[in-house]
Amino acid sequence: MSADPSQMPPAAKLRADARHNRTRILAAAREVFAARGLDVPMAAIARRAGVGVATLYRRFPTRTVLITEVFTDQLTGCVSVVDTALGEPDPWRGFCVAVETVCRMQMADRGFTGAFLTAFPEAVDFERARGNAERGLRELIRRAQAAGRLRADFTMADLMLLFMANGGVAAELADQPATAATAASRRLVAAMLTAWRTERAASADPLPPAPPLTLHHI
Amino acid sequence: MSADPSQMPPAAKLRADARHNRTRILAAAREVFAARGLDVPMAAIARRAGVGVATLYRRFPTRTVLITEVFTDQLTGCVSVVDTALGEPDPWRGFCVAVETVCRMQMADRGFTGAFLTAFPEAVDFERARGNAERGLRELIRRAQAAGRLRADFTMADLMLLFMANGGVAAELADQPATAATAASRRLVAAMLTAWRTERAASADPLPPAPPLTLHHI
Repeated sequence: MSADPSQMPPAAKLRADARHNRTRILAAAREVFAARGLDVPMAAIARRAGVGVATLYRRFPTRTVLITEVFTDQLTGCVSVVDTALGEPDPWRGFCVAVETVCRMQMADRGFTGAFLTAFPEAVDFERARGNAERGLRELIRRAQAAGRLRADFTMADLMLLFMANGGVAAELADQPATAATAASRRLVAAMLTAWRTERAASADPLPPAPPLTLHHI
Repeated sequence: MSADPSQMPPAAKLRADARHNRTRILAAAREVFAARGLDVPMAAIARRAGVGVATLYRRFPTRTVLITEVFTDQLTGCVSVVDTALGEPDPWRGFCVAVETVCRMQMADRGFTGAFLTAFPEAVDFERARGNAERGLRELIRRAQAAGRLRADFTMADLMLLFMANGGVAAELADQPATAATAASRRLVAAMLTAWRTERAASADPLPPAPPLTLHHI
């Protein structure tokens, strides 16, 4: 893989160049998405990768292909967080650990929120990974509610609401030290978990109805 | 004011044109900031207003001047919300009404968040209005805590955190019907108020420390 391309026969050199471009584009896209979200122009990604826009489109014919290749790995990481949480004997603790960990991953990578909150119907691997993450989160919710620890009126939409809220904190604090953004996110997540637990639910008013959230389609 | 400029002497016509341009630019800026936040290029505002970029810069020499002129009005509205809340006999209700109303204003206008969370040291009127809003909010916090209704570890940073979180919801749901975005925001705000009230505080863990939030400086 690391052979000197100038020593290769022409066809092998071409393949090595292509592979190299692909790696550079994915690395650049990951950086640019993390810093600026998913709305950046494709030209900005090509520039960061040091390739032409035509090369970028030859490797990744649509923005969706690029986004989903970049984020499938991270979503797989998210699935493994949820799987670990499902192995936790205390259902409330399992739920909290999953929520806290996913929100921490989100702070480290701003693009992740958009990817998680956007539907890519044609990206099969990505949607499979997202489906797995979502099913796992729903099971964590079901168990924590069955144990009487999570409010009965909590829904998956509340989790999506927290991811959006946490993304807002990440965006607003993007130019501050990572420690400030992390502390802000931790406090937000802790407040939401406090609101959602049942220990105090007896005296509390019900939350207003869950919003009819649907995914963006691009 | 509404006289036909073509009937005016040249100097008066010039002043009427200037006034007209100024009004159009402010209206366009308000729309563009509301839809896309404060980061839009000045050229996009000039385009929307139907004036040249040179005209825009002649009227508003810096982005700060434009932003603060657009938002001073809204901040004044925010001050009056806080003043009304300070007149509420129940300190917890006063606090809740102020938080809910400001978050509703924020959903109606995405640019508002950025304006509220950004320092403009050279914009005297704007900073005076913001100072008044902030002093009023601090007084609402003090009273609700003195009445034992708001957690003792609640700080102004928690309010800023909510504004950032609410801004994230507004941004993420910008292309959905306003009713969906409003319902999402209401549920987020209600959850945060539930977390912050003291009725259940006895059994709750303390929140992690307030993040060291500072304002952006542009």
